[in-house]
Amino acid sequence: MDEARMLGKELVSRNLAACANFHRIDSVYRWGGKVVEDQEVAVVLKTISERFDELKETVRSLHSYELPCVVCWDISGYEEYLQWVSDETGKL
Amino acid sequence: MDEARMLGKELVSRNLAACANFHRIDSVYRWGGKVVEDQEVAVVLKTISERFDELKETVRSLHSYELPCVVCWDISGYEEYLQWVSDETGKL
Amino acid sequence: MDEARMLGKELVSRNLAACANFHRIDSVYRWGGKVVEDQEVAVVLKTISERFDELKETVRSLHSYELPCVVCWDISGYEEYLQWVSDETGKL
Repeated sequence: MDEARMLGKELVSRNLAACANFHRIDSVYRWGGKVVEDQEVAVVLKTISERFDELKETVRSLHSYELPCVVCWDISGYEEYLQWVSDETGKL
Repeated sequence: MDEARMLGKELVSRNLAACANFHRIDSVYRWGGKVVEDQEVAVVLKTISERFDELKETVRSLHSYELPCVVCWDISGYEEYLQWVSDETGKL
Repeated sequence: MDEARMLGKELVSRNLAACANFHRIDSVYRWGGKVVEDQEVAVVLKTISERFDELKETVRSLHSYELPCVVCWDISGYEEYLQWVSDETGKL
């Protein structure tokens, strides 16, 4: 959890995300030809499209994983909330 | 958890969502100019597009937050499951 | 958790998903006309679009639920990670 929390705080501190949500998960994946079980933390971040590439590069540079999962999808919804995300991440 | 659970039950009871899933999370966000840490509950709801605005307004009116995160994205998949979501939320 | 974990491992073992993340959740839904509360496991899987139908049918055949939630949405992001998902699930 410590690495995930530090990473999330760093991204929010750098205005690359408006917020970070940490989910404790168990996981299963194939690595090096074997199916392995692990305990991980999934971090859900809210940001604007324009900041995703910089967020992705920052996660890559700070993350201990060789191949961290950094994926995104579009959301819509409550306009004032989306405006807050935009305000928090549009700062340079 | 109590507020999230009450909110989720209310939304399902009013046919604004077919189901509610509650995830306990830790979170980090900037509020009032400071980066704060919190413990929250992320609620994942399944509904139809036509009901989202009413769901959003209901969350806003019931939620204790000044600016609750109410966002959505489209899903596809198992047709019978999606039909069940539609059946449960299409009731008036 | 046991059923979810077995299902996730089976899907990864069959190359229907590159990885499975298990989230312990509480849930509320209407079933048989009543609003019921439950404890469940939400499984988040990464796969390619071309494998979703087979993944869905496999979940349906292995899952104990009459109507399991098997839904999907598109993601984009870190290219090397997406390539890994494609490599792991493109194997026959």
